[in-house]
Amino acid sequence: MSEEHGVSVERKPFLLGPVFKGQGWDTSPFNIYPVKGRYMWRDVERLCDKYGIPFKKPSQFPRNGVLASRIAIVAEQEGWCAEFSRLIYRLNFVEDKDISSEELIASALDSLGQHPEGVISRVSTGEDRARLRSQTEEAIGKGIFGAPTFVIGEEIFWGQDRLEDALLWYKRHST
Amino acid sequence: MSEEHGVSVERKPFLLGPVFKGQGWDTSPFNIYPVKGRYMWRDVERLCDKYGIPFKKPSQFPRNGVLASRIAIVAEQEGWCAEFSRLIYRLNFVEDKDISSEELIASALDSLGQHPEGVISRVSTGEDRARLRSQTEEAIGKGIFGAPTFVIGEEIFWGQDRLEDALLWYKRHST
Repeated sequence: MSEEHGVSVERKPFLLGPVFKGQGWDTSPFNIYPVKGRYMWRDVERLCDKYGIPFKKPSQFPRNGVLASRIAIVAEQEGWCAEFSRLIYRLNFVEDKDISSEELIASALDSLGQHPEGVISRVSTGEDRARLRSQTEEAIGKGIFGAPTFVIGEEIFWGQDRLEDALLWYKRHST
Repeated sequence: MSEEHGVSVERKPFLLGPVFKGQGWDTSPFNIYPVKGRYMWRDVERLCDKYGIPFKKPSQFPRNGVLASRIAIVAEQEGWCAEFSRLIYRLNFVEDKDISSEELIASALDSLGQHPEGVISRVSTGEDRARLRSQTEEAIGKGIFGAPTFVIGEEIFWGQDRLEDALLWYKRHST
């Protein structure tokens, strides 16, 4: 969608765990507030139906996304973050696969033409791990409390349902 | 907006206090989670700007809306709930007035051509108070956790940004 609007997007993966911890939550608010959580899942289901996007509520939620997030950091630098993220989301939210599994991640990397061992061993070293931590701190510093969040200068827009507003804001303030 | 779509709306005032209490909150989540709260106010401000609706963040939030809600119950039965609600929202969210004040409510009723003492003494008796309580319990029973919520059969749609989805759902499932 951003491409249609002539907007270039820089993806900045971060971890939700520390963000939630800062709010006093030790898991997803979907789990902490079950009444609201039930609604949120139904809302996601209806939105996916409306947009023609396949969706199946994961049997386990949330799943540990640390490895996937570390790889996303590398992927962003190398230009394959969008397709990697879409694949991981599909595995979690359509195929109900355990995306915390190194085996699954390896097979996902393979299907994208990446070298699983090379990528996984790279993200096990310090630099990319530190980068994920610092991007998470940066997110918290910007007042981000959930994902996805779109950042335009000092403004943040939270949720897929604010993407249009974010694009509109960008257009109004970038010319 | 609902009128443009040929949809008739039944307004059912309820109290957010007991709804929030059921989630373990003793005030608005805007206050309990200040990071998210700051964002939500900014979001409201931007949305009002987008829709050309005047808005000023109240200097006190939330304000006690029990009296206004009891009157809204009467107003709904008598057909002036929409204009009464709009006026109370304007007083709170544009003029930053204390909507818990009986004096302010009386002057609001007067400006709508209602008889302030008559209405206020009516809602001080048992029946309408009980009705507000039972509608609040009904809301909780439906899985409602915030306002506004649009109810269509078994489906609930939360937030002004789901009004279009609610109307779409109604059209798809009512014919």
